[in-house]
Amino acid sequence: MARIVMKFGGTSVADLDRIRTQARRVESEVEAGHEVAVVVSAMAGVTDELVGWCQQLSALHDAREYDTVVATGEQVTAGLFAIALQAAGVEARSWQGWQIPIVTDGAHGAARIRSIEGKELLRRMAIGQVPVVTGFQGLAPDGRVATLGRGGSDTSAVALAAALRADRCDIYTDVDGVYTTDPRIVVKARKLARITYEEMLELASVGAKVLQTRSVELAMKARVRLQVLSSFTDAPGTLVVDEEEIVEQPVVAGIAYSRDEAKITVRRVPDRPGIAAALFGPLAAANVNVDMIVQNVAADGTTDLTFTLSKSDLPRARQLLADAREAIGYAGITADSDVAKISVVGVGMRSHAGVASTMFRTLAEKAINIQVISTSEIKVSVLIGAEYTELAVRALHTAYGLDAA
Amino acid sequence: MARIVMKFGGTSVADLDRIRTQARRVESEVEAGHEVAVVVSAMAGVTDELVGWCQQLSALHDAREYDTVVATGEQVTAGLFAIALQAAGVEARSWQGWQIPIVTDGAHGAARIRSIEGKELLRRMAIGQVPVVTGFQGLAPDGRVATLGRGGSDTSAVALAAALRADRCDIYTDVDGVYTTDPRIVVKARKLARITYEEMLELASVGAKVLQTRSVELAMKARVRLQVLSSFTDAPGTLVVDEEEIVEQPVVAGIAYSRDEAKITVRRVPDRPGIAAALFGPLAAANVNVDMIVQNVAADGTTDLTFTLSKSDLPRARQLLADAREAIGYAGITADSDVAKISVVGVGMRSHAGVASTMFRTLAEKAINIQVISTSEIKVSVLIGAEYTELAVRALHTAYGLDAA
Repeated sequence: MARIVMKFGGTSVADLDRIRTQARRVESEVEAGHEVAVVVSAMAGVTDELVGWCQQLSALHDAREYDTVVATGEQVTAGLFAIALQAAGVEARSWQGWQIPIVTDGAHGAARIRSIEGKELLRRMAIGQVPVVTGFQGLAPDGRVATLGRGGSDTSAVALAAALRADRCDIYTDVDGVYTTDPRIVVKARKLARITYEEMLELASVGAKVLQTRSVELAMKARVRLQVLSSFTDAPGTLVVDEEEIVEQPVVAGIAYSRDEAKITVRRVPDRPGIAAALFGPLAAANVNVDMIVQNVAADGTTDLTFTLSKSDLPRARQLLADAREAIGYAGITADSDVAKISVVGVGMRSHAGVASTMFRTLAEKAINIQVISTSEIKVSVLIGAEYTELAVRALHTAYGLDAA
Repeated sequence: MARIVMKFGGTSVADLDRIRTQARRVESEVEAGHEVAVVVSAMAGVTDELVGWCQQLSALHDAREYDTVVATGEQVTAGLFAIALQAAGVEARSWQGWQIPIVTDGAHGAARIRSIEGKELLRRMAIGQVPVVTGFQGLAPDGRVATLGRGGSDTSAVALAAALRADRCDIYTDVDGVYTTDPRIVVKARKLARITYEEMLELASVGAKVLQTRSVELAMKARVRLQVLSSFTDAPGTLVVDEEEIVEQPVVAGIAYSRDEAKITVRRVPDRPGIAAALFGPLAAANVNVDMIVQNVAADGTTDLTFTLSKSDLPRARQLLADAREAIGYAGITADSDVAKISVVGVGMRSHAGVASTMFRTLAEKAINIQVISTSEIKVSVLIGAEYTELAVRALHTAYGLDAA
């Protein structure tokens, strides 16, 4: 017997038929003798409509009222899901965040979960009742409903799994797992049976958006075993677990890419202490997230600084740097948004040398020029021309032996 | 300066434009120096959709889950209305029933309000903030949301007005007031400037459904001055008040009719004590509401008993009486659902004789046969053939001097 949190995303509960289908999944787990708690998202499209109404009434709407309106989406699904479970003969009741309570901080619209009181839910689960919990929301210190920000239901599910000390948190979604790379680019991409939290985080941060990053961070911290699986098939999904749970560690778990990148080069910056702070300080203050940074060796007392950032931040970053030109004293700026970031991710590379050199050699063989390189403990990323994205991903997928037989 | 509760029904807040329009009404009252609290219904059509979903999932759905789902309608409107008020420069915040709290009993789906904690709302109204309260719902003893049953938002508004000791409770709806009779039948029907609670109740119970009956009962008991007015015009509405507030009392306030009636005659019932109890007991036990009752004088030790009931209850009542035939020992039953009830209502008839005889004479002049008569302190009702409904209503409207000039 295991204790399981099952989370269903918006497309999985998009209409009454799908709600019935997911209720049957829950029924199977209950009949198999498991204790189950369910976390639900709003029915697909509902949240967007509610958000749209708030925005139409006022571009600068009160975040507390936004939360009041938007939180109803999950409330409806939770009630309907409980009814569907009862109709299937499963004892169930819905729980809104404020009823449990799921306590959040006061950042309405983008709140963080502080604590979850799990005792009453555990008591009911022990006697066979299935709690159906509204994802994406909780009770703020002001006594009102607060939402966690878009995609927050994954985080709700993981936090609940941690509070209930669940054996597993199953995230049902519209993809059936995590792949070695994007199957739309590489036909031979394989679904991974297991992946570590760290790898999942690195893959998510470079474009493989299966799970909300926050939820993976929380799962890693609270050691919640996550499973990503499809709500439309019965195929096994991908288990996201601690490194120790993966016996035969592959060197590289997957290849990720992101086309949402831009590159800025600041030319002939005076090469003196504090100059990086002067340059990146204003960007950080304006919430512009800088990713890769490369500084060339200075020759004539100046240096060239290159960094990457999100494409959408490019206009703002240019303006900020123009404003700071006098203070920094650089010669000029060049920007390029026609770039892509390719990353090779795997916890195995900690103990295996040669991962980076394999990458460089493979790209060289395809005559792909590397513009920027950055590495972390379990990841090697390069910036290349955007037109080489598919070519690079396919070549690397083969080079690291990831192609399906 | 007055303290006003303004209640907006579903058609009044059916879309964002209408919500903006009603927000401007509230703004006007605030600018006039009044303290205002708002009560809102769900946007038109929303509640029906939510109810439909619950029913589709299970005909015998859990009333507590039904409440969880259906209560979201008002929650959305309250949040949006608060945003619209803020956009108009009016300080406002939404309140859900559980936040105030509006405490109800435990009858999920048809709960009654037990108490409302008004202190915090009053404190905020005193400093210019407008509370926007979800109608139709409160917090049940089990810690969950309970709804009041369809049309319950009127009751919420009156209960809130009582708790806040408001000077007036304005009910904005899709009709612009209470008329002397149905304007679709009598072109010369007049809008009443004032009407008493008792008259409003009698008119409501015979088909003039402007306000939910429960809300009028509560207003009468708590002495809340009610105003019914249109959310689509700026015309003054009808004030529902205590009798003492109406100086020049007309004898008859209005003529109401109902086609939702059926008549049952039980023939040759043994004329002995307890027979009425034996007959009506099973009906009452089955929640069949019997209205007018007439017992003819007995000749041969038996009597004929005629009564009216709602058309929808007719099949059930026939079955119940058939089941009890042996116990009662009657000769037969005849039923007629082709009847209408016409009522003349007015508190003035307490002190004026001749109201009933004017009614009988008027109907006789039109050769309309009266099948059953019943009277109360402020009402005379007759049952007639359904085909005479319009003729009777028009003739009586003229006879009592109600026609507009």
